Amino acid sequence: MSVLIVGSIALDTVKTPVEEHADLLGGSASYASLGASFFSPVKLVGIVGDDFPESEFDFWKERQIDATGVQRVSGKTFRWSGEYAWDMNTRETRSVALNVFEHFRPDLPEAYRETDFVLLANIAPALQSHVLDQMKEPRFVVADTMDLWIETARADLDALLPRVDLLILNDSEARELTKETSLIKAGRKIRKAGPKYVAIKKGEHGALLFGENEFFSCGAYPLEDIHDPTGAGDTFAGGMAGYLASASGKPDFASLRRAVIYGSVLASFNVEAFSLERLRTLTIEEIRERYDVFRAMSAFDERA
Amino acid sequence: MSVLIVGSIALDTVKTPVEEHADLLGGSASYASLGASFFSPVKLVGIVGDDFPESEFDFWKERQIDATGVQRVSGKTFRWSGEYAWDMNTRETRSVALNVFEHFRPDLPEAYRETDFVLLANIAPALQSHVLDQMKEPRFVVADTMDLWIETARADLDALLPRVDLLILNDSEARELTKETSLIKAGRKIRKAGPKYVAIKKGEHGALLFGENEFFSCGAYPLEDIHDPTGAGDTFAGGMAGYLASASGKPDFASLRRAVIYGSVLASFNVEAFSLERLRTLTIEEIRERYDVFRAMSAFDERA
Repeated sequence: MSVLIVGSIALDTVKTPVEEHADLLGGSASYASLGASFFSPVKLVGIVGDDFPESEFDFWKERQIDATGVQRVSGKTFRWSGEYAWDMNTRETRSVALNVFEHFRPDLPEAYRETDFVLLANIAPALQSHVLDQMKEPRFVVADTMDLWIETARADLDALLPRVDLLILNDSEARELTKETSLIKAGRKIRKAGPKYVAIKKGEHGALLFGENEFFSCGAYPLEDIHDPTGAGDTFAGGMAGYLASASGKPDFASLRRAVIYGSVLASFNVEAFSLERLRTLTIEEIRERYDVFRAMSAFDERA
Repeated sequence: MSVLIVGSIALDTVKTPVEEHADLLGGSASYASLGASFFSPVKLVGIVGDDFPESEFDFWKERQIDATGVQRVSGKTFRWSGEYAWDMNTRETRSVALNVFEHFRPDLPEAYRETDFVLLANIAPALQSHVLDQMKEPRFVVADTMDLWIETARADLDALLPRVDLLILNDSEARELTKETSLIKAGRKIRKAGPKYVAIKKGEHGALLFGENEFFSCGAYPLEDIHDPTGAGDTFAGGMAGYLASASGKPDFASLRRAVIYGSVLASFNVEAFSLERLRTLTIEEIRERYDVFRAMSAFDERA
């Protein structure tokens, strides 16, 4: 089954304590769609300027990512530049130039409107709602968000939440959204605001998943070196949505658990190199192998 | 099999944003021995003053905790007072009075020296080594430590590590000990300094366990409310050591995984009330039930 993915497409300049690279492919939809494409065909929605490399369209075509929903307009592509602190855990935005993204209005091609699965990757919640308005009864809606929208577009976000099946956000965002310090309280409180399921990403500490009467907790894949954390959360969301869309029927909690692991696996590969470079060469066999390692490292026996 | 436990015995005054209680039983050995006693008989080593309540000795007797190794001397018992911040994650020590603990020298009763399992709960590493010097080839040695000893007794700690089978410490201590920000790097580096196994406690984020070619990661039990985090780490260590001592033979990695879960379960109960109050009423059936919940919340299927 296909998954429709809408979000930002950007050219990023990223500086870590070790390296700096300019104008690499970035943006929430770029990471999410490549992550999802390992499991399901993707229908991508976004906007780029006339400076955007044609080679990326060729790459998407190779990877079952349908880019007919990507608007190409005159002007410059969205640009973001950030710098990571020595511990790679905190980052500072050095500059943002919205460019053509400033007036982005995601209008879906007719052929996109009956897609069963939707991933509203990180963009303004009003745009996420606008996409849903154009869809014909999607079976499952996944949404990602960020601190910026919690702070500046709270009413739009609150209006979106009841339309979402699975909300994905990170630990600090969950705390900010709910004013709860306990992530357990936060996850449960967010569910009451609408989403049937909530996934809280905790970076090196793994992830939590909340359902009605169900709860899942997992660690992160043990990585010694992280080269560029940019897009890890978007890749996680893409991996989850792509995996869920690959199964038939409505996802149940058991498939959501597996989806969290696949999302974690994809994110763990993504941070091994700058931009999307690691995902470009990644194979499904490598993904499966790491899934199995994940299972081995999380397992413990029943009581004797 | 019995487990010998040495550490501090204190009377604590604890203030949280909600409550304050004075002169409750505390200290690393108090928490650890009660945690271990659910699984194995304990031989307790420590020191108290003549103000220490006789009722605690009666309680230990009921709970298969042999206190013949607890020295009762004239003077006041070690007293500690601390206050937790609003989020219960950080605490400030308000006062410390070492009292009789200042000149504590753990000399083991003859009957203690052949104990197979040892838990060196958190005290100065020189004292931990002094206990090992008196033991006749213990089968398995578990040690806990803290930031204070990393900062003030590093040489003693370094000398202890090669004599330890399992070192337990928290995430910030692992980082401080190794100067590594990655906990994965930190855990592997600590193993190279001596301990065969390393367990890193991450509070609400669970725990990591490192073996030679093995790795285990688990989340924490999902608690909405924490009443008093004091002693959670000591209870975790006690639960681990007590469980390991209850099985025959030398622990393997599979039993260490289960021990991490039992330690986490014990710690999760401990923080539900002040001091050791929750552990006093806890039953083995409650522990088993929570172990099963832990398994359910950590499980995910094989690849389809």
